[in-house]
Amino acid sequence: MESSILKIKDRTLSSVARVVDEVTDVILSWVGNIGEDLSRSQDIDKLLSKMRECVSPKGGEVKARHNTISLGNLYLQLSEAGKSRFLRMLNDQFSSNREDIEQSISAYVNNTDPELEEKLRFELAAVLCSPRMGILKQFMSLSEGVRFLVSMRADVISLSRRGENFFALERDLKGLLSSLFDVGLLELRHITWDSPASLLEKLILYEAVHAISSWEDLRYRLDSDRRCFAFFHYKMPQEPLIFVEVALVESVSNNIQALLDESVPKRDPTSAKVAIFYSISNTQVGLSGINLGNFLIKRVVSRLSGEFPSIKTYATLSPVPGFVKWLMGVLETEGNGFLRSVGILCSAVDLSEQVNVVNGGAGYVPELYQEILLKLCAHYLKTMTGSKVIDPVAHFHLSNGALIMRINWMADTSEKGLAASLGIMVNYSYELSKIDDNHESYVVHGKVIYSREVASLLKKG
Amino acid sequence: MESSILKIKDRTLSSVARVVDEVTDVILSWVGNIGEDLSRSQDIDKLLSKMRECVSPKGGEVKARHNTISLGNLYLQLSEAGKSRFLRMLNDQFSSNREDIEQSISAYVNNTDPELEEKLRFELAAVLCSPRMGILKQFMSLSEGVRFLVSMRADVISLSRRGENFFALERDLKGLLSSLFDVGLLELRHITWDSPASLLEKLILYEAVHAISSWEDLRYRLDSDRRCFAFFHYKMPQEPLIFVEVALVESVSNNIQALLDESVPKRDPTSAKVAIFYSISNTQVGLSGINLGNFLIKRVVSRLSGEFPSIKTYATLSPVPGFVKWLMGVLETEGNGFLRSVGILCSAVDLSEQVNVVNGGAGYVPELYQEILLKLCAHYLKTMTGSKVIDPVAHFHLSNGALIMRINWMADTSEKGLAASLGIMVNYSYELSKIDDNHESYVVHGKVIYSREVASLLKKG
Amino acid sequence: MESSILKIKDRTLSSVARVVDEVTDVILSWVGNIGEDLSRSQDIDKLLSKMRECVSPKGGEVKARHNTISLGNLYLQLSEAGKSRFLRMLNDQFSSNREDIEQSISAYVNNTDPELEEKLRFELAAVLCSPRMGILKQFMSLSEGVRFLVSMRADVISLSRRGENFFALERDLKGLLSSLFDVGLLELRHITWDSPASLLEKLILYEAVHAISSWEDLRYRLDSDRRCFAFFHYKMPQEPLIFVEVALVESVSNNIQALLDESVPKRDPTSAKVAIFYSISNTQVGLSGINLGNFLIKRVVSRLSGEFPSIKTYATLSPVPGFVKWLMGVLETEGNGFLRSVGILCSAVDLSEQVNVVNGGAGYVPELYQEILLKLCAHYLKTMTGSKVIDPVAHFHLSNGALIMRINWMADTSEKGLAASLGIMVNYSYELSKIDDNHESYVVHGKVIYSREVASLLKKG
Amino acid sequence: MESSILKIKDRTLSSVARVVDEVTDVILSWVGNIGEDLSRSQDIDKLLSKMRECVSPKGGEVKARHNTISLGNLYLQLSEAGKSRFLRMLNDQFSSNREDIEQSISAYVNNTDPELEEKLRFELAAVLCSPRMGILKQFMSLSEGVRFLVSMRADVISLSRRGENFFALERDLKGLLSSLFDVGLLELRHITWDSPASLLEKLILYEAVHAISSWEDLRYRLDSDRRCFAFFHYKMPQEPLIFVEVALVESVSNNIQALLDESVPKRDPTSAKVAIFYSISNTQVGLSGINLGNFLIKRVVSRLSGEFPSIKTYATLSPVPGFVKWLMGVLETEGNGFLRSVGILCSAVDLSEQVNVVNGGAGYVPELYQEILLKLCAHYLKTMTGSKVIDPVAHFHLSNGALIMRINWMADTSEKGLAASLGIMVNYSYELSKIDDNHESYVVHGKVIYSREVASLLKKG
Repeated sequence: MESSILKIKDRTLSSVARVVDEVTDVILSWVGNIGEDLSRSQDIDKLLSKMRECVSPKGGEVKARHNTISLGNLYLQLSEAGKSRFLRMLNDQFSSNREDIEQSISAYVNNTDPELEEKLRFELAAVLCSPRMGILKQFMSLSEGVRFLVSMRADVISLSRRGENFFALERDLKGLLSSLFDVGLLELRHITWDSPASLLEKLILYEAVHAISSWEDLRYRLDSDRRCFAFFHYKMPQEPLIFVEVALVESVSNNIQALLDESVPKRDPTSAKVAIFYSISNTQVGLSGINLGNFLIKRVVSRLSGEFPSIKTYATLSPVPGFVKWLMGVLETEGNGFLRSVGILCSAVDLSEQVNVVNGGAGYVPELYQEILLKLCAHYLKTMTGSKVIDPVAHFHLSNGALIMRINWMADTSEKGLAASLGIMVNYSYELSKIDDNHESYVVHGKVIYSREVASLLKKG
Repeated sequence: MESSILKIKDRTLSSVARVVDEVTDVILSWVGNIGEDLSRSQDIDKLLSKMRECVSPKGGEVKARHNTISLGNLYLQLSEAGKSRFLRMLNDQFSSNREDIEQSISAYVNNTDPELEEKLRFELAAVLCSPRMGILKQFMSLSEGVRFLVSMRADVISLSRRGENFFALERDLKGLLSSLFDVGLLELRHITWDSPASLLEKLILYEAVHAISSWEDLRYRLDSDRRCFAFFHYKMPQEPLIFVEVALVESVSNNIQALLDESVPKRDPTSAKVAIFYSISNTQVGLSGINLGNFLIKRVVSRLSGEFPSIKTYATLSPVPGFVKWLMGVLETEGNGFLRSVGILCSAVDLSEQVNVVNGGAGYVPELYQEILLKLCAHYLKTMTGSKVIDPVAHFHLSNGALIMRINWMADTSEKGLAASLGIMVNYSYELSKIDDNHESYVVHGKVIYSREVASLLKKG
Repeated sequence: MESSILKIKDRTLSSVARVVDEVTDVILSWVGNIGEDLSRSQDIDKLLSKMRECVSPKGGEVKARHNTISLGNLYLQLSEAGKSRFLRMLNDQFSSNREDIEQSISAYVNNTDPELEEKLRFELAAVLCSPRMGILKQFMSLSEGVRFLVSMRADVISLSRRGENFFALERDLKGLLSSLFDVGLLELRHITWDSPASLLEKLILYEAVHAISSWEDLRYRLDSDRRCFAFFHYKMPQEPLIFVEVALVESVSNNIQALLDESVPKRDPTSAKVAIFYSISNTQVGLSGINLGNFLIKRVVSRLSGEFPSIKTYATLSPVPGFVKWLMGVLETEGNGFLRSVGILCSAVDLSEQVNVVNGGAGYVPELYQEILLKLCAHYLKTMTGSKVIDPVAHFHLSNGALIMRINWMADTSEKGLAASLGIMVNYSYELSKIDDNHESYVVHGKVIYSREVASLLKKG
Repeated sequence: MESSILKIKDRTLSSVARVVDEVTDVILSWVGNIGEDLSRSQDIDKLLSKMRECVSPKGGEVKARHNTISLGNLYLQLSEAGKSRFLRMLNDQFSSNREDIEQSISAYVNNTDPELEEKLRFELAAVLCSPRMGILKQFMSLSEGVRFLVSMRADVISLSRRGENFFALERDLKGLLSSLFDVGLLELRHITWDSPASLLEKLILYEAVHAISSWEDLRYRLDSDRRCFAFFHYKMPQEPLIFVEVALVESVSNNIQALLDESVPKRDPTSAKVAIFYSISNTQVGLSGINLGNFLIKRVVSRLSGEFPSIKTYATLSPVPGFVKWLMGVLETEGNGFLRSVGILCSAVDLSEQVNVVNGGAGYVPELYQEILLKLCAHYLKTMTGSKVIDPVAHFHLSNGALIMRINWMADTSEKGLAASLGIMVNYSYELSKIDDNHESYVVHGKVIYSREVASLLKKG
């Protein structure tokens, strides 16, 4: 799969390259002979003056757009170093003017006419909106402008992770993208085996939970007893933004192996009783922090309810990414004391050993230890730091209003699954009638909701 | 045509009514038994509490959307009086909190750490963004959410024109719609006789310059030597936002009668030398102030240039809406003095009489007076108030970078044309190579650009 | 409407003309300088040799197709006289060879080997298939080949009606078109106000029963309580082949005026109890004799049954085109004798006079005569010549398995309706459970099926 | 790949099964309790009577269609043995009646009125058209009727290959399918990586020349310097009927390995000089004998000519399927005598041994033998039996008007390629200006056209 991903990336790059070829002449005539890494100071000067032409244009707003389009095409041509310098300029040079802000603040604060209150607020807000934002908005007129902005934010995030400061630019981009990708503007699409191969290929590339091992695996996940839904933006019609994979089954799945086993014959979906959400993946780094998962799950639940009246249970089969790490930490620091506090009487040393055995790939663990580990996992899931549980997947589903339904032994025996959670997976259940209350319990009162089955795991002794 | 328009309106209303029927139960269960004109104080109280549920939701952001969807459907059910009260609440109750703003201002003003500068700006901007805006954005999740917002702003504008104050709500709506209808997100479509009748019907309804008298008239305007282009938003696919009508002809048209005469056989467009833009109409009251005309004209020029290499001249045939009014005013107040100042020696009284004759519908005017009136029209077109010429059509084209090319006698002999401008129409010319300079001359230096032909009209004596 | 139709025809011709322009050079290089009316003998010789190149091609079958495409484009360029000569050649020169046929017949008749029986039949059938048919099939490769064949048959039928003999060509074309337009290959489409104006325009043009007076009339017929369905061929996507107009109403309509009255507000179709088929029109002369009406009505009944469970009655409101003509003939030739034989005691002379009164447009007829005329109409409807009733509309519906349900007085008060049937119209009812039996009764046993209501009309005295 | 093919077949079967489920009730109520293998005589009797209801229907033609639809759905439910019995009945029982034919023949032969000549021919032809054909045509009204007929003919062909006689049925089916799949009714489509995965999967399944080894291989064959075109029928929109794969390259390819090597970077297609047709595959057994390849190649040549003006050479890289078999035969029967007759002096025994060496997979052959084997291949390619060359691929391209351009050593080193032709492949060249002449030379005069290069290979000594 790795090689396949690389090929996709190459092809994407070359398609961008082709577009760039077409516009090179136009850019050159506009910006002149500029180096692709912007290493010379005259390049920087020239670019800065061009950026300014995008903000206070002679020639009117149509001309300004054209300038920004040229600027965007230039960006696509730059080397990595060049892009970094380009973004640096955009971040550092195009903030709002402090004096203008202070003047506006002063007008607002000193105003005593209630009639003018709102007008002065809007004026202050307008002054706070940076010239940079003006340029960013104009990029939307690029032939793939929306995708351009998403990519630019991905570039900014990647540079930020290396320690560079692009705070203002990143925040402006996030603000703009949040408006553009408002869930009310997105389209929910059912992805099937009849979808374009070039789109399906991206599922293989982006699947973040249970890797898709081959096109046969993919086809199996799109078969008649499965569903795959994604959100799309009309300006990026071939890019799924987030997608979820669902299995329509008889009863709540307790392991992922059976779900992904291609040799299991498909079932008749019209008699299914349970919809299992077994994978949900975000695809765009450039959209991080813009949460769509909550909306996606509920739209899909609502759609499946209409299509399959026989389905009464909506649940996930989810990983527990932080369990082993947490457990080993607890055993090391608090050891037997902790175990006893939750009603477990075995020795921390013995338990550590068992964890290592499972972790190392050996399937078998004495039944006694299975129970102990499930119990510990239940404790882990309700462990909070501040107002959140520490497991990120648990936090996502609990804050969506789901409850912890069941904890499953040997539910993901892949190397990754064993390493992260000793193969344990969790079902979170979405009961439509209780979602609002559950959400409030968790988000407002910090209370984790779980089933009786999980409750009995948590009981002492 | 009037009756046809009324029918369209009726049908639109009834289609909205149908949607409302479907959701009535849902709304009722949510908001309870509420009167359609919100005349009782308990209705107002209930609604206010529901609006608050859209802003600080229990149940999470998905729940908040659902609340807002119910709120929007309720709005559609209200009477005119009810809508006015609903909007009043939205305008008056959901502004940002003044104390929060002052606190944020104080944090910003007192900050001395340059590292925090940008962060505090974003915080201040966030506080300035009203809770009202949060509700408005959530309306986008209505099944026709974007159209809903456009309609709501039309309602607000209509109420404002009657003297009510909806400043904050109107500004918030305009801000939101400006983002949504950014030209980079719109689609330019060629409208033809193969377009849906339900779409073409809207051209008849919305045409604002030269009324479309029948379906035959419409078909003639969409024939092979004509072009009609419009901008569309992907969420309102059957609603043209602004459209322009173009004739592909041999030479610059000097009257509208010939252009609209259905008995004139169509020409082969591939040999056309001139594209005449003879009508441009905005369609959505709710989008007023969001200027798309400039972009539309230039996109169409660019597209036609590609399709018809033989076309070298792009010009309009435009009305002169304010000429008669201005002229009568000038003759009354300044009379012969003014006439002499522009080199005209006839008496103001005689001229007034001639104007009334034409104005009253009598076609014939002595040739001497034709020349005098054309000369006066040229003076009118360059008359400025502040930094703008007073004729709104002239201002639109001049600020787009066009120049005044020619002033035509008896170019629009319709009642409307005679009343407004004695039948005079103007060609504005868009020369691609000069648009930027023309724009700057007018917008920056306040200089009106015109052709030699017009210049000679302006010469004294 | 007439002028509108002429305009459509002109536009169609000119669009053909445009295509012809593009291919003229190609044709000229192929066929040389040929006159558009083929009046010179060398033109005929040249064309004949070219037609032969389409049948026994050097260069293979691809080349033969190209030749035939050139031949088809030439046809489109010819004058009316030229087309007639072209078709004459095709009819007279490209029949099967009589000697080949006789040889094949002889081989078949003299064969005694049962193993060879089928083989020899196919050989004989192959020889009977004319070279002309080979050319016709190749016309399908023209850019609008299927439409070309339909038009050519319309031309042939038009010439035949003027007395020319094109028997062989007409039969070959009909055979080919019957295969192409097999109902299994056609698509049923719902036509709405959202359909292209260029398609809707054709409904106005082709409506054969109750003329569509305006676009408003058309819109009314496509409103939410109406349905219009048509069959389409995928190679003529903008040409409805046959269409039916249906009203969804409360009870069986007894006059056409109310159905077409635009001032009647539309009803909620979901509560309709009756579907009235009030107009069915064939559109293509070139498809005459290829009956699609029967299939269309039953497909529409089946589709509406699915969509509107509340509709229990499917009936027509149909004209009685031959009633007055038949009645006047009978009164003239058999007079009182005939009247007495059906139990009517008034005098033939008095009756004739009343008929003339109605016929002449005077609305009022004494009630006595209304009853007499309805009774006579019932007799007319069951009058047979050979195995068919003489009224063509009655024959169509009876052979489809419908029954005569009701005869309505003053049901079509248009000039046309009064002249043909004294304003009388008939409801034929399609009862799904009885259609097969009704069909057999009529077609096999020559028995006309009618309701009790009609039976009581037929009773003597 | 095999397993992948099996999966597709399974899925197709199960989708048919699903359709069958839906209609089972309908069929049962129509045909009663019938065994799926038709092994009981009462089943046969019942079915025969039902088939007769499709031919001479009570209830009219709509009823007859419904009967045939039930019949078709029954067929889909039968076991293999049942299908064979069903087809047997259709073949044996529904031919034209011999007496009717003789009567019609007699009327035709004895007629002396030239006016009646054509009429009697059509009547004879009509009688020769079997009742069976009537049933087959009505199958078109099945929901996938056209596909049904193609499958039925595939079944018939498969049974015929096992020695059963279905002559009449097979010929009727072929006649009907030839009309339905006339090239003028087909659509040429460009297949790309953006096509549905479910369609692309079929390319993998159907590729008959160079097996597609994986989805990566497939993607490589659809990359920007490749083209894949297929013919489609509008009633089978997801089934390519025949497809061709083309590489856009710098010079005429002399081996398939380089063409299929995924590690070779793609070229810029706009600068390509040569289009190489390296694979052409028929996909439907049920369409055998209906030749579309000739049309496909020429449509693709014409399309590529328009898109890529720089391409001047259109050639194939084709297998030589019968070379080894022919050569070994010749060496065995005629040995040295034959070799000497074509100017080769080596011994037949030595040569045989070399052939076996290559054939067995050992790559290396002394250069001397390479030359000898290429020379012998050239002789093979022009060896005729009757009016055709014996190599089927050579016959296909020669009769299309191509010429033998070049014979390439070690051009296909796959096991299959070595076994069939010692790895030799041939370029056939399509020169547009010579295609007609080449075709005529070969088809009319039996002359094989080849290049100078091949001519020099054929020279003695």
